[in-house]
Amino acid sequence: VLMASVHAVPLDKEDLSVAEVLRERALESSDAYSLVESLTVEVGPRRAGTEGDKRAVAWAQQKMKKLGFDRVYTEQIDVKRWARGHAHAEVTAPYPQPLVVSSLGYGAATPKGGLTAEIVEFADVEALINAPEKKIKGKIAFINKRMERARTGEGYGPAVQGRSRGMRAAAEKGAAALLLRSVGTDSDRFAHTGMMSIDGVENPVPALALSAPDANLLEAMLERGKPVEVKLDVENQRLADGPSFNVVGEVVGREKPEEVVLIGAHLDSWDEGTGALDDGAGVAIVMETARLISELPQRPRRTLRVVLFGAEEIGLVGARQYVDAHKDDLDKIIMVSESDFGAGKVWRFDTRIPESKFAIADQMMQLLAPLGIERGNNESSGGPDSSVFVANGVPAMGLYQDGTDYFDYHHTPNDTLDKVDPENLKQNVAAWVVMSFLAAEMEGDFGRVPAEH
Amino acid sequence: VLMASVHAVPLDKEDLSVAEVLRERALESSDAYSLVESLTVEVGPRRAGTEGDKRAVAWAQQKMKKLGFDRVYTEQIDVKRWARGHAHAEVTAPYPQPLVVSSLGYGAATPKGGLTAEIVEFADVEALINAPEKKIKGKIAFINKRMERARTGEGYGPAVQGRSRGMRAAAEKGAAALLLRSVGTDSDRFAHTGMMSIDGVENPVPALALSAPDANLLEAMLERGKPVEVKLDVENQRLADGPSFNVVGEVVGREKPEEVVLIGAHLDSWDEGTGALDDGAGVAIVMETARLISELPQRPRRTLRVVLFGAEEIGLVGARQYVDAHKDDLDKIIMVSESDFGAGKVWRFDTRIPESKFAIADQMMQLLAPLGIERGNNESSGGPDSSVFVANGVPAMGLYQDGTDYFDYHHTPNDTLDKVDPENLKQNVAAWVVMSFLAAEMEGDFGRVPAEH
Ligand SMILES: [Zn+2]
Ligand SMILES: [Zn+2]
Ligand SMILES: [Zn+2]
Ligand SMILES: [Zn+2]
Repeated sequence: VLMASVHAVPLDKEDLSVAEVLRERALESSDAYSLVESLTVEVGPRRAGTEGDKRAVAWAQQKMKKLGFDRVYTEQIDVKRWARGHAHAEVTAPYPQPLVVSSLGYGAATPKGGLTAEIVEFADVEALINAPEKKIKGKIAFINKRMERARTGEGYGPAVQGRSRGMRAAAEKGAAALLLRSVGTDSDRFAHTGMMSIDGVENPVPALALSAPDANLLEAMLERGKPVEVKLDVENQRLADGPSFNVVGEVVGREKPEEVVLIGAHLDSWDEGTGALDDGAGVAIVMETARLISELPQRPRRTLRVVLFGAEEIGLVGARQYVDAHKDDLDKIIMVSESDFGAGKVWRFDTRIPESKFAIADQMMQLLAPLGIERGNNESSGGPDSSVFVANGVPAMGLYQDGTDYFDYHHTPNDTLDKVDPENLKQNVAAWVVMSFLAAEMEGDFGRVPAEH
Repeated sequence: VLMASVHAVPLDKEDLSVAEVLRERALESSDAYSLVESLTVEVGPRRAGTEGDKRAVAWAQQKMKKLGFDRVYTEQIDVKRWARGHAHAEVTAPYPQPLVVSSLGYGAATPKGGLTAEIVEFADVEALINAPEKKIKGKIAFINKRMERARTGEGYGPAVQGRSRGMRAAAEKGAAALLLRSVGTDSDRFAHTGMMSIDGVENPVPALALSAPDANLLEAMLERGKPVEVKLDVENQRLADGPSFNVVGEVVGREKPEEVVLIGAHLDSWDEGTGALDDGAGVAIVMETARLISELPQRPRRTLRVVLFGAEEIGLVGARQYVDAHKDDLDKIIMVSESDFGAGKVWRFDTRIPESKFAIADQMMQLLAPLGIERGNNESSGGPDSSVFVANGVPAMGLYQDGTDYFDYHHTPNDTLDKVDPENLKQNVAAWVVMSFLAAEMEGDFGRVPAEH
């Protein structure tokens, strides 16, 4: 239940007209595609704390300046660093053949020369957690849970448990390593990497995602009834902590510059693809949104702040440190939103605002509906990084993209520019300019929302 | 123009009824899928001359015996051998990032520690051949030709020129290496390997296929106008020649056992996928075809010979050596056909028979048409390996599969079992039993066709 608040001040008709003009301009001439093209070609992989990350930070500042933002600056954050080495896996018995794998983020190495052990299959991480230690000790745990495809991406939550909690569970049972069926919806021979929960794991073991066809292979071998033995040879290394940056660009408000509409995306990516969908598209969408608004004859009433968060992929690190650093200014952020779900069309408009302000969302919907967008719920987190703000009472909005194919590419080498449809980005920017401009321009605000527990 | 011959003896009505029964059985209960599943799971990659190849040969013999073939035997062939080592590529300037590549078959290694050079783009291999030496000497030739998608796969011929002839052209111009946009129709981050023409190349240079997204990357970097520098680090090794095998299984004819209908597929595969489409599906289709025919109350009049050719991928080696070894018996082979175009549905029935025998093909069509198959042309090669027989006057038939998606997976790590639809295989086997049974059972034969030049 959300707080009651003062009654909503309706959006001004003139502001709605300006938003409509912006929407049409976005559909006709917005060019977020060039931004994601530039980022993927000129920077490419940009995992937090790597050289690519540094280049991305430089790219973002340079680009924002060129686009005409009023202020461009960075805020340093501290990140845990890790070097990915090779990861080889092969079945050694009974049917020798190589497997396609990828180390999960911050995973351990094998001993030099590798390790060989029998695999033991588990339906999901719960089954592993509940298994007797003697079943798994010294062996390789194989979590074989499939992810369901959905426009909302709702299959991700259940499936990602194996990735976030599997290595810890395997290590605690004395397993030699973890093999995980990739958290993804494709059937291509790509492993999906991603973050694990590693804090406090005493003896981390190597943890590898298997591509779906490779998980199928192991499954089929196990069905034949003989023990299946796998050799792993993995070289990874934890490095000393280091700096990364949130990159911030502002279109400064003409009347209430201290009040902020914060729209974000994350600048970092995983290191095997070029991060076109995750989250190059989001970076491009919010940058292009601000550019279009900055080209109006006058600045909106409030400041529109674009934050390209660092180190989202390794635990919302940039967002958490941003919120910590700006604890005292959070009440100046009247709304937060993030684009981080690929490059599909926006199909739903969610909010997290007091019910008393629903009339404003309804007015926004008048301009969003022609884009094929329906009104969703009031439980939006605003996106992964935004959720940290929402947890601190900041109202949020969410322009939900069609994620049907998102997890075909997510965190794989196959997350590349060719998966981005320029027309879809235009529709995204059209929705974003409507929401962002109206929030920055409107008379009233959204108050606060109850912090999430 | 094909030779005139005696008038065709029409197919017997009773034989046509048997063929129809076989067709229906194939649609209902044929299980080629289990065979390709077994081959991909229990053997996997099986490039000619490797351990996997040996296991495939053992697998095929064992399987044929189990399926109840009357005779199962192997015929040794000699193959050139090669060991694939790692292949790393990265752009070093102006936009450092890694590239996904794969060594083309029998490609050379780089010097230890790799080589770094500027890339020079060519629209196709002809452009490279026509370029002045000073443009390319010491640099890396980048052939950037796209392949067109087609149901017939007809885009392959033009595109594959770069792969077969590119390295030779690059080496002759003094290039440091060859980078080739993959011969494929997908936009996934897989490089497509495959054979090059290497005979007589004096100073072979490293030759690598780039995935389509990586070729796009280089293209986009070059468009920005600065020199693009790439580092290659490749470890490959030519090995001494060694043995491989054609594996043969026969359903021996009841009346004219010395006359043969030869149906084939190739047992070898490239080494990065499990060879499900190329050519596990074909292996399964022809084996299951023979099995169904062997379950009839009596053997057909002639021998049905299933030949699983070795070393097709490295130059039709098994087929060439088969034809050489059986030069004197080729006139006993009344028809040859091969399944080697993936696992799509058959949509066209081609032949290469004397015109005087078209009536027989027309009768076969009566039973094929209900499977959604149309009559094609009389220029069939019968398939890659079959073409060597046709070149020696053996008549051929071809059941053309829908190859729309074939080159999405061809010669990549992504050629795996999940790409095979069991229902499509049933339709294939239904067509194959009709053609194979009638050819083995029919009263007359097809005579000879003019040898190809
Ligand atoms: Zn993301
Ligand atoms: Zn991500
Ligand atoms: Zn083939
Ligand atoms: Zn092939």
